[in-house]
Amino acid sequence: MKIDRSRLERSIQDLGRIGETARGGLTRLALTDDDRRARDTMVRWMREAGLHVTVDRMGNIFAERAGEPGQPPVLIGSHIDSVPTGGKYDGQLGVLCGLEILRTLGDRGARTRHPVTLVIFTGEEGARFQPAMIASGVLAGKIALEDAYNARDRDGIRLVDELERIGYLGPEPCVPRAFRAYLELHIEQGPFLEEEGRSVGVVEGIVAIAWSRLTIHGVQDHAGPTPMRIRHDALVAAAEVVAGVRRIASAIGGELVTTVGRLDVSPNIPNAIPGRVSLSIDMRDPSDATLDVALPRLDRVVREACEREGVRYELEHYWRVPYTPFDRQVVAVVERAAQATGASWRRILSGAGHDAQYMAAIGPAGMIFVPSRDGRSHCEEEFTAIDDIEHGANTLLGAVVELAGRA
Amino acid sequence: MKIDRSRLERSIQDLGRIGETARGGLTRLALTDDDRRARDTMVRWMREAGLHVTVDRMGNIFAERAGEPGQPPVLIGSHIDSVPTGGKYDGQLGVLCGLEILRTLGDRGARTRHPVTLVIFTGEEGARFQPAMIASGVLAGKIALEDAYNARDRDGIRLVDELERIGYLGPEPCVPRAFRAYLELHIEQGPFLEEEGRSVGVVEGIVAIAWSRLTIHGVQDHAGPTPMRIRHDALVAAAEVVAGVRRIASAIGGELVTTVGRLDVSPNIPNAIPGRVSLSIDMRDPSDATLDVALPRLDRVVREACEREGVRYELEHYWRVPYTPFDRQVVAVVERAAQATGASWRRILSGAGHDAQYMAAIGPAGMIFVPSRDGRSHCEEEFTAIDDIEHGANTLLGAVVELAGRA
Repeated sequence: MKIDRSRLERSIQDLGRIGETARGGLTRLALTDDDRRARDTMVRWMREAGLHVTVDRMGNIFAERAGEPGQPPVLIGSHIDSVPTGGKYDGQLGVLCGLEILRTLGDRGARTRHPVTLVIFTGEEGARFQPAMIASGVLAGKIALEDAYNARDRDGIRLVDELERIGYLGPEPCVPRAFRAYLELHIEQGPFLEEEGRSVGVVEGIVAIAWSRLTIHGVQDHAGPTPMRIRHDALVAAAEVVAGVRRIASAIGGELVTTVGRLDVSPNIPNAIPGRVSLSIDMRDPSDATLDVALPRLDRVVREACEREGVRYELEHYWRVPYTPFDRQVVAVVERAAQATGASWRRILSGAGHDAQYMAAIGPAGMIFVPSRDGRSHCEEEFTAIDDIEHGANTLLGAVVELAGRA
Repeated sequence: MKIDRSRLERSIQDLGRIGETARGGLTRLALTDDDRRARDTMVRWMREAGLHVTVDRMGNIFAERAGEPGQPPVLIGSHIDSVPTGGKYDGQLGVLCGLEILRTLGDRGARTRHPVTLVIFTGEEGARFQPAMIASGVLAGKIALEDAYNARDRDGIRLVDELERIGYLGPEPCVPRAFRAYLELHIEQGPFLEEEGRSVGVVEGIVAIAWSRLTIHGVQDHAGPTPMRIRHDALVAAAEVVAGVRRIASAIGGELVTTVGRLDVSPNIPNAIPGRVSLSIDMRDPSDATLDVALPRLDRVVREACEREGVRYELEHYWRVPYTPFDRQVVAVVERAAQATGASWRRILSGAGHDAQYMAAIGPAGMIFVPSRDGRSHCEEEFTAIDDIEHGANTLLGAVVELAGRA
């Protein structure tokens, strides 16, 4: 059994038009009108494929292909929200490959022991509502529904109000549920598969992640008549932190990555000394122990930068996800399926968080990677060749068939 | 003749309510609804004081108290727009002291040879529409009216459309006009008067100013799976520039001040490596020669920071105002008037640009400073004691009376 490559390619193009940017990327933030339009399209395609569609209280969409009564489903999941000026592959590709698996099973009239269910998770990116993976976090019981509902975007709009506004505040409870296995196909978002010329990554686990946020309070003043000797410039301190965060990675080395991705200045005009700067720090490593070393270094970098400039600060380490190993049996199934496609593959770790991370906490989970051109993602240039996508989708199909079993 | 201290204090309080922030500061950006309300209030007060009000094509408001026919007026000017979360003294104080002078002359039925005209300039701060002092720049023939009209705020809204919307696109030409003298009272915005316990600064000139803008193009990518070795992070390069701009001031020393006041990151989310950063650089010194040394250093700082991170950039030195000495006779008149109040005074330079800078290009100009508590301005904590304001206003009154002459 093989997937229909041209049907899959067409779906990627069609869904990719919703929220498309002028330069061919995608801006489809969670629970915006474009997200609603993309959801509506997915639900229509799901129904056309004969699937039973339900929506839960976090707006997660489930499309089930029945198996034998009482059997827990094989879940295939990912997301269709994007970052601003992101690409058409991150998330969307996993959802559309999942749909293609279900369409292929339908074409063949395949009967499986376990139901096969496609899941679209709400707001995986964390670009509009933090933290990232908020809806799988609620489903896994790691984030309280009420906290998720009260997450606010930059304009102060609550997640729950947007869920309701776009018509995806569903009736089903969003709680841990039994499943045979959870599988997610995703772009690698790193350079390794492409560098080694491989089509498929058999993902063994997801690196540990620590997110921190820092607010620096300087003294806002006029940029002209204020002598250098009396300045307390929040941005000068923040710039030292940015440099220090980079130095943490070079000093510790290995696979540790450190990023300041968000930085906001107030009042942010040319002729005022910045009075306040807030910024984010993202640190990741395959080993939790490395983050245990890196976080106190961050504390010191911030303390020293702020002392030197004479500014106050608040530093909060507000989100930490430990290293997530995937289920050994699921990984073995994915490996066999990759092998069977004849494509070149390797085992790999994920440097990015995925909904699979939370799902792994409540059941057996695994992931499949396909290459990212130049290792790039979260940008308009994001691209994966259709040959690689085909190998990845057939790997997913093989793994689903083995895990779902014959009826 | 003395001004009415309690009437002036009341006017400061009343006008200060329009655009007042929760913490007692002021957010009254140019050509917003709050700016319109403040203009309407000023025009009402001007008319109640029996003044003849006209508005020019840049929205500058003129309120004339007649003198002998054919005589050029003594102009008293400043502005009523503010920076975001600014204070109630920057600009507004000069306008209200000017109004108080005209009210006092009216109370006494004083007859002057030269007319005395209060001017409110549009958009002095440059917080919403750049460059700063845009309307006096047009009046002085230094900025083309069309360029000013096409200045856009961050939302892409044109200055001319906002002028029209709030009803201040006047009929009078905005061109150089003859005047006997231009006087502007303003807060010092620096620490010197307060440190020395003086009430009045007799301003000899305005420092030279250079504004530059820098855009850095990095490679936007995912903060997780992108190894440090392949990153080109626009914010890391920008942070080095911020540190380098600070070092230029410490290396050259003297009275040079350097500031990065605005910095915008794209896409500005925690888990994306910044693909683009744009920022402003503001450098000022009493001597043009110092800026001639500082600007090439800035070029080097930017080049080296961007080379190190492997990112492209565009650096533009887009605005330069040379050192502006004020008219020696006007400065001498102000000095005599300060002396006559009995207050403690000193000669001083202005570190901030003012509309007086452009007015000095087309006629005799001078300024009067009053102290800023803790040297602070462009912040909600901006404050000047009423005792100092009274001395400043009486200095302005004395100077106006001498310059306008008896009829």
